[in-house]
Amino acid sequence: METIKNRRSIRKYKRDEVSTPLLNELLETAARAQTMGNLQLYSVVVTHDESMKERLAPAHFNQPMVKGAPIVLTFCADFNRTSQWCRCRKADPGYDNMLSFMNAASDALLFCQNFCNLAEERGLGICYLGTTIYNAGQIIDILKLPKLVVPVATITVGWPDEYPPQSDRLPLASFVHQETYHNYTPADIDRHYSAKEALPENIHFVEINQKETLAQIFTDIRYTREANVAISANLLEVLKQQGFM
Amino acid sequence: METIKNRRSIRKYKRDEVSTPLLNELLETAARAQTMGNLQLYSVVVTHDESMKERLAPAHFNQPMVKGAPIVLTFCADFNRTSQWCRCRKADPGYDNMLSFMNAASDALLFCQNFCNLAEERGLGICYLGTTIYNAGQIIDILKLPKLVVPVATITVGWPDEYPPQSDRLPLASFVHQETYHNYTPADIDRHYSAKEALPENIHFVEINQKETLAQIFTDIRYTREANVAISANLLEVLKQQGFM
Repeated sequence: METIKNRRSIRKYKRDEVSTPLLNELLETAARAQTMGNLQLYSVVVTHDESMKERLAPAHFNQPMVKGAPIVLTFCADFNRTSQWCRCRKADPGYDNMLSFMNAASDALLFCQNFCNLAEERGLGICYLGTTIYNAGQIIDILKLPKLVVPVATITVGWPDEYPPQSDRLPLASFVHQETYHNYTPADIDRHYSAKEALPENIHFVEINQKETLAQIFTDIRYTREANVAISANLLEVLKQQGFM
Repeated sequence: METIKNRRSIRKYKRDEVSTPLLNELLETAARAQTMGNLQLYSVVVTHDESMKERLAPAHFNQPMVKGAPIVLTFCADFNRTSQWCRCRKADPGYDNMLSFMNAASDALLFCQNFCNLAEERGLGICYLGTTIYNAGQIIDILKLPKLVVPVATITVGWPDEYPPQSDRLPLASFVHQETYHNYTPADIDRHYSAKEALPENIHFVEINQKETLAQIFTDIRYTREANVAISANLLEVLKQQGFM
């Protein structure tokens, strides 16, 4: 409880190695996560090698954690292993479709989050790279992922060399609904977002970007419609190429 | 660590209530999970009401946990709240696309898994219902989810009234790849799956279903190509209807 309550993403790591026995213990325990039909529709590619980190870095927009962390983990939705098993056992696997992708992606993400909790409990620092699905095609090439395998999350792992302030969160009432979903009035939005908007770092962020509101930072700079539409088309193309559509 | 290592899904619950302060504390702490741009692209609908559980049960193929648990939680990928915020702040949200759905689904699943770990640490039992995306359209109607909100996971929560045996897992080597993905030979498949196939309950399962192999249970009975294709079409329809395609 306390580990999760106090967590912060760690982007700077000591040079110390993360031992293989520790990593394996964490991955093995993480695999206790719920999984569809107990099929474990995921795999994880472990990157230790410096040259592999160099190749992965551009796919993650050269975020420095990729080259700076002792270990990079790429969590993949994987229906390949299960399908291979079926083919070896006189069974005809029908998992080349969107539902199967979503089931495998869910399995991979639950497993990933379990890993994060376990790693942080042991004092490791992790950073979740949401960039994975933005450049999934590149990552597939670099990690040689076959059909029915798609990367859905990347985690950098190491011993923390920083203790950054904790980021804010929205109030509970903003994301919990009783019995049915109650849509938001402008007054609700004010109530839920005013504390976030009043944070000095966010006010500063709006100023230096010469924007009127914090929301415009997201819509105009960080996650624009144009980029979202282009990357969505890529992502659908990747799902097709990997055999999921 | 120990909680996760020893976990089992709980499908039978005591009649005791889960108090609202405890539930809220768990949800609030779970929200420390990583989230895209700190936008928290999720919401959760809490079902206490018996008549709402009655309505939800068929969407989950009448699995008895839905009506038997004191609380049912439906975790949703939610770009509606963020988009409402943008519109209230002179910002034009461009989140009606596949990438945005995947980002929100990831956020919701990481938050959900955090919740599961925290709940189990407190002694609560949970069961993850993977059926949520199978009948997402029904759940959307029942919970009155607006556009840009799609349910991705359901959890039943309560105080355990059973202690079932722990389910098996594949060996670590079957889902961990070093540096690049190494595809599976038939010998690899034998090595990874033989223990699972030799479990008495699985042998029994194959027998009573008059199948030749365990894999056929999955391909011919539990997750058939025919059903997967039909549900994939539904799911894409739901994503379109909810404004994500």
